[in-house]
Amino acid sequence: MKPIPSYSTFARIFTLGALLVLGVQAHAGDPLPSWNDGPAKQAIVAFVKVTTDKASPQFVPKAERIATFDQDGTLWVEHPIYSQVMYCLDRVPAVVKAKPELANVEPFKTVMSGNREAIAKLPEGELMKIVAATLTGMPVETFNAEVKKWIAEAKDPRWKKPYTQLTYQPMQEVLKYLRANGYKTYIVTGGGQDFVRVYSEAIYGIPPEQVVGTAGGTTYGYDKNGKPFLTKEPKLLLNDNNAGKPEGIHLIIGRRPVAAFGNSTGDQQMLEYTKAGDGARLAMLVLHDDAKREYAYGPAQGLPDSRVGTFTQALYDEAQKQGWTVISIKNDWKRIFAFE
Amino acid sequence: MKPIPSYSTFARIFTLGALLVLGVQAHAGDPLPSWNDGPAKQAIVAFVKVTTDKASPQFVPKAERIATFDQDGTLWVEHPIYSQVMYCLDRVPAVVKAKPELANVEPFKTVMSGNREAIAKLPEGELMKIVAATLTGMPVETFNAEVKKWIAEAKDPRWKKPYTQLTYQPMQEVLKYLRANGYKTYIVTGGGQDFVRVYSEAIYGIPPEQVVGTAGGTTYGYDKNGKPFLTKEPKLLLNDNNAGKPEGIHLIIGRRPVAAFGNSTGDQQMLEYTKAGDGARLAMLVLHDDAKREYAYGPAQGLPDSRVGTFTQALYDEAQKQGWTVISIKNDWKRIFAFE
Repeated sequence: MKPIPSYSTFARIFTLGALLVLGVQAHAGDPLPSWNDGPAKQAIVAFVKVTTDKASPQFVPKAERIATFDQDGTLWVEHPIYSQVMYCLDRVPAVVKAKPELANVEPFKTVMSGNREAIAKLPEGELMKIVAATLTGMPVETFNAEVKKWIAEAKDPRWKKPYTQLTYQPMQEVLKYLRANGYKTYIVTGGGQDFVRVYSEAIYGIPPEQVVGTAGGTTYGYDKNGKPFLTKEPKLLLNDNNAGKPEGIHLIIGRRPVAAFGNSTGDQQMLEYTKAGDGARLAMLVLHDDAKREYAYGPAQGLPDSRVGTFTQALYDEAQKQGWTVISIKNDWKRIFAFE
Repeated sequence: MKPIPSYSTFARIFTLGALLVLGVQAHAGDPLPSWNDGPAKQAIVAFVKVTTDKASPQFVPKAERIATFDQDGTLWVEHPIYSQVMYCLDRVPAVVKAKPELANVEPFKTVMSGNREAIAKLPEGELMKIVAATLTGMPVETFNAEVKKWIAEAKDPRWKKPYTQLTYQPMQEVLKYLRANGYKTYIVTGGGQDFVRVYSEAIYGIPPEQVVGTAGGTTYGYDKNGKPFLTKEPKLLLNDNNAGKPEGIHLIIGRRPVAAFGNSTGDQQMLEYTKAGDGARLAMLVLHDDAKREYAYGPAQGLPDSRVGTFTQALYDEAQKQGWTVISIKNDWKRIFAFE
């Protein structure tokens, strides 16, 4: 005979059931728990409602629900230096080993010196030489394996955590919320398309085919056993910044987004292009205004410009004029990282 | 009181139920009813089984299930002239009207003459001039609207039906069968990416973002009201033929396909690249060998080469050597079109 469950067993089962139900309700009730209630959160929720409710005049068919996100400074930390530039700097010793003649040539000489202060002062053009030398000339699969290894090991110097843990929890919630409502989420980054595609699925749930970025050409060829492979070439196909963002969206996606998120002047054209379509549109800009919990930088706050994501006063004014929503990290985000 | 159903009502309900069940079973039992039972059909079914059965050592995770299809001659009729070339020829009067100085310049002069025999003899290079003149220089949205209008009205001269009805029913079944098994289906065409994206969703169920094709650049700009728009430029970004197919797959998809389908030497590198990956791979070539029901053409059958999809003897030999499956339209396809 089965033992009759005691009252306390019933109570435990009931409590467990109630917790499960409450848990689900809490989730269904608030898909954005890391956001403070304010205009930014309200704009996101209202947009999802009007575009997914079949009775709404602003309903968007599922196939057309495309949302695009800049990466650096929008989905994860970009300050004080893009992680991809860190990758390139870390790769320099291997590049110099393969081509020893570079050891005495700038900017490689400075990087090899290990003098952090001098490295930090390298001008943009010199950094680009390093990026070109380290991101091209190798087989696609070797490159992918290198990046995968680096991203698993490299750590941000301030938080002493892998870069992949420095994604913004509130934005992760937006990605999931949009996907749960039938949106296809894309990254549209000024960073390297091949670089971001290596880890986008693991850290954002965004598959490689939904990453648009700065892209170089490849060349198809055969190894000594006749096996075909692709080599990364220095030829630039798409500079996915500024006007290059809508151009890249057209090339890779072929549809105009309905929602777009950025954090710098490099995202302005993507937001304009998104907003210029018919019906409900969502355009948002993350403002880095939290010096304590993350960083505060950029001319829009009267702060010095830095080497990453420039948020000018003109962009801020344009956002006001065009009805784009500015997300204040300080005021809109209850917490910034999942590990907090 | 409810009337008691008669025996015959029961019998009718039972028969209807049985038919529904049988219908479902027939579908479940044969996802490829337009295929004759033979090595091609067996290769497709076996491939899907081993890559989707979790217990199989050749199981492919859902995210990696990418299948790529050439379009012209693989998914729909390409003979005697690609429909996109027909579109370009049809556009010539409008192009000449906009630029009257072209009326006396070849190849526009020949096209304007209406002399079909002379038009059919225009060399490849001259045709490309027409393609460049008719596919570029206009806003993306104007182009999309033009193609949409044309494809709805234009008819194939032999079948007197819209081109969109000349898709191969057996290949439509393969697309659906693969998608029902978690595959993402892509078109990888030598044709224009923007052109094919206009109708791919309606006729193949393939959304624009899953079309890779020959692509030109666009330029972002503003109209007189400050509204942003993209203009198609004559600058070639991707020639999606031959080696350009794996290069285009890398650019747009960023993953190696697990299955690939083509019908000409222009597809050889895509098939090689697909097959060079680890695990189970499917590579198939459609052979146009049915002069009666469709067309027979190409050197592999000792027939004259034509302006469309060249299937050389060397490609045929390579298919045998590499274990690619050749699909004989004559022997493998029970019916060719849905309207038959």
